[in-house]
Amino acid sequence: MQNIQSYIKEHKDRFLNEIIDLLKIPSISADSSYKDDVLKAAASIKISLEKAGCDTVEICETAGYPIVYGEKTINPNLPTVLVYGHYDVQPPDPINLWDSPPFEPVIKKTELHPEGAIFARGACDDKGQMYMHIKAIEFMTANNKLPCNVKFMIEGEEEVGSANLATFVKNNQEKLKNDVILISDTGMIANDVPSITTGLRGLSYVEVEVTGPNRDLHSGLYGGAVANPINVLAKMIASLHDENNHITIPGFYDKVENLSDAERAEMAKAPFSLENYKKALNIEAVYGETGYSTNERNSIRPTLDVNGIWGGYTGEGAKTVIASKAYAKISMRLVPNQNWEEITELFQKHFESIAPKAVKVKVTPHHGGQGYVTPINSIGYQAASKAYQQTFGKTPIPQRSGGSIPIVSLFEQELKSKTILMGFGLNSDAIHSPNEHFGVWNYLKGIETIPYFYKYFTELNN
Amino acid sequence: MQNIQSYIKEHKDRFLNEIIDLLKIPSISADSSYKDDVLKAAASIKISLEKAGCDTVEICETAGYPIVYGEKTINPNLPTVLVYGHYDVQPPDPINLWDSPPFEPVIKKTELHPEGAIFARGACDDKGQMYMHIKAIEFMTANNKLPCNVKFMIEGEEEVGSANLATFVKNNQEKLKNDVILISDTGMIANDVPSITTGLRGLSYVEVEVTGPNRDLHSGLYGGAVANPINVLAKMIASLHDENNHITIPGFYDKVENLSDAERAEMAKAPFSLENYKKALNIEAVYGETGYSTNERNSIRPTLDVNGIWGGYTGEGAKTVIASKAYAKISMRLVPNQNWEEITELFQKHFESIAPKAVKVKVTPHHGGQGYVTPINSIGYQAASKAYQQTFGKTPIPQRSGGSIPIVSLFEQELKSKTILMGFGLNSDAIHSPNEHFGVWNYLKGIETIPYFYKYFTELNN
Repeated sequence: MQNIQSYIKEHKDRFLNEIIDLLKIPSISADSSYKDDVLKAAASIKISLEKAGCDTVEICETAGYPIVYGEKTINPNLPTVLVYGHYDVQPPDPINLWDSPPFEPVIKKTELHPEGAIFARGACDDKGQMYMHIKAIEFMTANNKLPCNVKFMIEGEEEVGSANLATFVKNNQEKLKNDVILISDTGMIANDVPSITTGLRGLSYVEVEVTGPNRDLHSGLYGGAVANPINVLAKMIASLHDENNHITIPGFYDKVENLSDAERAEMAKAPFSLENYKKALNIEAVYGETGYSTNERNSIRPTLDVNGIWGGYTGEGAKTVIASKAYAKISMRLVPNQNWEEITELFQKHFESIAPKAVKVKVTPHHGGQGYVTPINSIGYQAASKAYQQTFGKTPIPQRSGGSIPIVSLFEQELKSKTILMGFGLNSDAIHSPNEHFGVWNYLKGIETIPYFYKYFTELNN
Repeated sequence: MQNIQSYIKEHKDRFLNEIIDLLKIPSISADSSYKDDVLKAAASIKISLEKAGCDTVEICETAGYPIVYGEKTINPNLPTVLVYGHYDVQPPDPINLWDSPPFEPVIKKTELHPEGAIFARGACDDKGQMYMHIKAIEFMTANNKLPCNVKFMIEGEEEVGSANLATFVKNNQEKLKNDVILISDTGMIANDVPSITTGLRGLSYVEVEVTGPNRDLHSGLYGGAVANPINVLAKMIASLHDENNHITIPGFYDKVENLSDAERAEMAKAPFSLENYKKALNIEAVYGETGYSTNERNSIRPTLDVNGIWGGYTGEGAKTVIASKAYAKISMRLVPNQNWEEITELFQKHFESIAPKAVKVKVTPHHGGQGYVTPINSIGYQAASKAYQQTFGKTPIPQRSGGSIPIVSLFEQELKSKTILMGFGLNSDAIHSPNEHFGVWNYLKGIETIPYFYKYFTELNN
């Protein structure tokens, strides 16, 4: 019987080829024209789970894209790990900024990934990270080393708000029963600074539409005399932050947890170079809420960002037009205790209230989710920490992430179990951006670390 | 020999078919993919001028699109009228708001045009209005009624700022020598309220680009910690107007001519219904600079309007991204005495100065032009006024327009002659908008009125 290290060595090329095949499928859940590809990705995951040794694998239909469920039960008296991941990906726009086509994966070396990284949409978020778990199970079943039961729940709507996962979870509590939930959909600080994510931000995502005149107008004949929806939208967006970059929506901060000075001091110990951060983004200065550090701004503080804006003439050259409509997509990252539905409602009310009478405003909520904090004294966290110690030779740092996996707080509520966020990507892997990639080293290190989690989790449960 | 009324009656169908054929050519100067069509429109104008009886017609090459020049000299001692117009058109976007395709002209009745209107991009601006002059000349030459000399200068870059016309005019002062310039590229108050445009606004059109991080970022991992170029652009745009909708660019109003109370009282006499104005645009309230009426806001006051804005994810669904770049197209309508180049520079300096250190800003001037005011005691104006009295049975009202024909002030400077703006379109004809149209009645009324201008202008010059 092999150990995981030699198994990886032997099967490395196949492990890479398999993830590359999966990355070739443009499973973009946000764009309905890719529906067939999203379904193809689900079918592919089903086959992978079967090959990895799951006893039962099914494609569970939902009102949207299906959830791939798989399980391997070795003994009902042993603990059960539920693995969650997603097979859908973000749209690749802006496509012209990719150095290679987003759905034609290539392996290239980078400064941070001297052993090469797989460049493709979804490489890190989340196909690559999700697939590590399937390969880890393959190792354990093939070598009779699976110490407990395992269940998989891989969905296809994470990038569009997991709208149908909640219903599935609520309706399948017995089927999904578990002792711990394991997710790899986050990052770690650096390849030599392993970390485990202990907090996630919540999210409220809305779209706004500002309508002025009932048709596009000539800016000479009407300019200055009617409300220009783009100018008005800019004014409304601008007013959502004050001069200290505090969000001005009444009630927005009411439930925000304020960390103690001691907690903030603890956070500040994580290795961070502002110079490197600015250099990596080619910016002269960071920008954010007065009174908070960069790491605090993107983890323990809520935000409001415009993710997209459009209106009027955006083609080549000039067109002297006053647009009838202007639009923006706006998302708010929330911290634990902020309720996303409440925040969405506060936004909607406030945004409508600040519109001048000369325009009409429509706010359409897209989706959202709660923030989450996991305790570091749980068996799950301890098992994960020991697994990292085994494979990285270092104790991982508990770290709050600025990202959101809205479904995590729902899991806790419905399934009464804690989630452990074992992420192996890096922040610089450009998830949601052009040239997304995932280190080959990271991919294999994930496959190596996961079996140890199962081992220690089962042992600590005895 | 026929009079103009019976000539129109006899040739009405042909007059309509000819303009419809011209409107079928998508001569969009702003979009280089339509280059062949723009050139096709120029060739078509050349043939029309020849058929109308011009002695000399040439296509004059420029660094951009050519200028079609034509002339008919009957006696060098008689006065010369120079007709200016343009054969290029605005882009038709947003194309989905057109009820019929923009380059497949159809005639449909409307409330204001009970005898039908031609719906097509360029119907009113300016193909239809320019073509009236060719048909008027056709009548006069065919019936030996041309009382003076005429020259035509029809360009193909008006909608993109007439960048090459200035050079042409400067290099051809002798060729273009004239006693008055006649342009139909403006509107009148109503079919039963004829008016002549005596003022035009100037224009400065710029494009701005705000760059934050060097790539699109995940809004969870970076949100709150880096400057979001869309939020920053919104803030910068918002700051360009104060709470009274005054423009905040330092020095912007320095040269603005302030009209006397008497002049403003005179202007206020023009028929105008705020209720009808709001109803036509389906708006609950107008919006503009405090202290000025709607008609003042869009004629004697300068403006700043965003004509287009874009950045980030604008597709279907949601994408949690912080864009690397955000863009806007911004135009300022200027009043006489404001120098457009000076204003462009003031804008550029100010816009760069208000950018936070966390972003980079690039301002690219597109084009511009000076405002213009024409005196109503000139022979040209008097001749035009008498022509309208003849065909409308009413004295036309002198009126300042909010639009811009930047080249008009250059004409005065280089050719030392005044321009008469005899426009026959209506503000509601949706120029620059979807469903642009031009009343059949207006088209024919223009053809009818123009020959009287030649008659009176020649008589008053004796």
